[in-house]
Amino acid sequence: MTTTPSPTPTPTVLWLSAHPEPRSLTASLRVSGIAHLRAAGHEVIESDLYAMGWDPVLRGEGISAQGERFDPTADVRRALVEGRLPEDVRREQAKLTAANALVVQFPLWWYGLPAILKGWMDRVLVSGFAFGTDPRTGRRLRFEDGPFRGKRVLTALTLGDRPRAIGPRGKSGQLEELLFGLLHGTFAYTGMDVLPPFAVPSADRVDEEAFTRAQAALHVRLDGLLTDPALPYRPQFRGDYTEEWELAPHVRPGEEGLSVHLVHEEERDPSHAL
Amino acid sequence: MTTTPSPTPTPTVLWLSAHPEPRSLTASLRVSGIAHLRAAGHEVIESDLYAMGWDPVLRGEGISAQGERFDPTADVRRALVEGRLPEDVRREQAKLTAANALVVQFPLWWYGLPAILKGWMDRVLVSGFAFGTDPRTGRRLRFEDGPFRGKRVLTALTLGDRPRAIGPRGKSGQLEELLFGLLHGTFAYTGMDVLPPFAVPSADRVDEEAFTRAQAALHVRLDGLLTDPALPYRPQFRGDYTEEWELAPHVRPGEEGLSVHLVHEEERDPSHAL
Repeated sequence: MTTTPSPTPTPTVLWLSAHPEPRSLTASLRVSGIAHLRAAGHEVIESDLYAMGWDPVLRGEGISAQGERFDPTADVRRALVEGRLPEDVRREQAKLTAANALVVQFPLWWYGLPAILKGWMDRVLVSGFAFGTDPRTGRRLRFEDGPFRGKRVLTALTLGDRPRAIGPRGKSGQLEELLFGLLHGTFAYTGMDVLPPFAVPSADRVDEEAFTRAQAALHVRLDGLLTDPALPYRPQFRGDYTEEWELAPHVRPGEEGLSVHLVHEEERDPSHAL
Repeated sequence: MTTTPSPTPTPTVLWLSAHPEPRSLTASLRVSGIAHLRAAGHEVIESDLYAMGWDPVLRGEGISAQGERFDPTADVRRALVEGRLPEDVRREQAKLTAANALVVQFPLWWYGLPAILKGWMDRVLVSGFAFGTDPRTGRRLRFEDGPFRGKRVLTALTLGDRPRAIGPRGKSGQLEELLFGLLHGTFAYTGMDVLPPFAVPSADRVDEEAFTRAQAALHVRLDGLLTDPALPYRPQFRGDYTEEWELAPHVRPGEEGLSVHLVHEEERDPSHAL
């Protein structure tokens, strides 16, 4: 008997999105982006949270015993280990496990995620699955040791602000910094490779021509989903941070601000190494 | 007939909080903080979102006509003007209108608001009420021209990270920067005076002694609720920003990062003025 080499598996993308209106700009870009990925040979799984009627509220009911004090981290972890998580949560976890890459698409509401999407993070990314320690091995699950190492994530959003408002000196905050809690605190925390976000500004004024441009720009980013360089966030456990989770004094001494958590170009260039 | 001078009105505080467990650290600090404010003579209105069963999901149902395309900004604004907003939203808007100050209290989940609380922002802070233009006068409502000028807001949160993780070089991002979308993009946007946030780190390890310390520290911050200096965010319409919503070239030339949106000490000192 001979062994036939298994074919390269089809890359699987989970497309997670949140918009209440199926004829919105967000929805049109989703339909177009998914078709583009499929034409390129990807398998695409969808979680269209509004269409699914997703419940975003993390609660103790069904997780803690009635009348017991509910600990949102420890009790949900126990429910995971004992196979008692709600069915809707387990379904989303299975999708994420199957995916090689994740596209997270939403309109920016109050400079953050729509509540229904934030509640996907709150309920699906539970301790023992997305962070904490591995229930079987006891290994820590975080950043470069995170459970989702090797998965890639592209955040794609629409917003009302003009383009410069989310630039380096933009009034709404430079986009990667505005979304630090999502890109670094959530996605990188779980071990994912985080791509620079894709944004469509001035979204209230998108005419047919602007839509065509936005669509083409999104397709370019989707073509690089598995290959584009990720944001160079620092690893947590290789000496850049102290045990108090603070940047070590020798790293970019005296500097502050969210950009210190990115490895800068000159640090990567061996000719500049100390 | 003589006019009696009206007494100084009792300051009213809206205490907005979100935790699923009534015996949690968040809940204990809430009970203690509210009692402290009442003892100091404040009137306190409460919105305990989990206890209220608050629905955080912004939807078109009941706002747009059946079958019509739902625009989450324009259609909700029209519903406001026509008095058709859902009853639960109108109730929260009335509380906010009545309040001189707001305390927003929550556990930090995935480096952001619990979904139920984000959905309070999404549904309550609608165009024409919290931002946009005034439906009666046509005046713009934003930042120093915002509708909530004169109201103050204190964000109070608990988090698992150690204290230095949210410091200036902390791995989770300096707290004011991590919460920029809330403090600046939401609260300052609506015109509020935004106090530096109050945080209880290492919240999973709070014993009785640590609770007593956290409670005392919170009470100090509550004593300063109406008087403590607010974060000095720049006004939007007085020359610091261009019409593209970017920091003007003459303001902190060459600097980037979220802290450029704060007026720095030396800019306020007349001896340093150009």
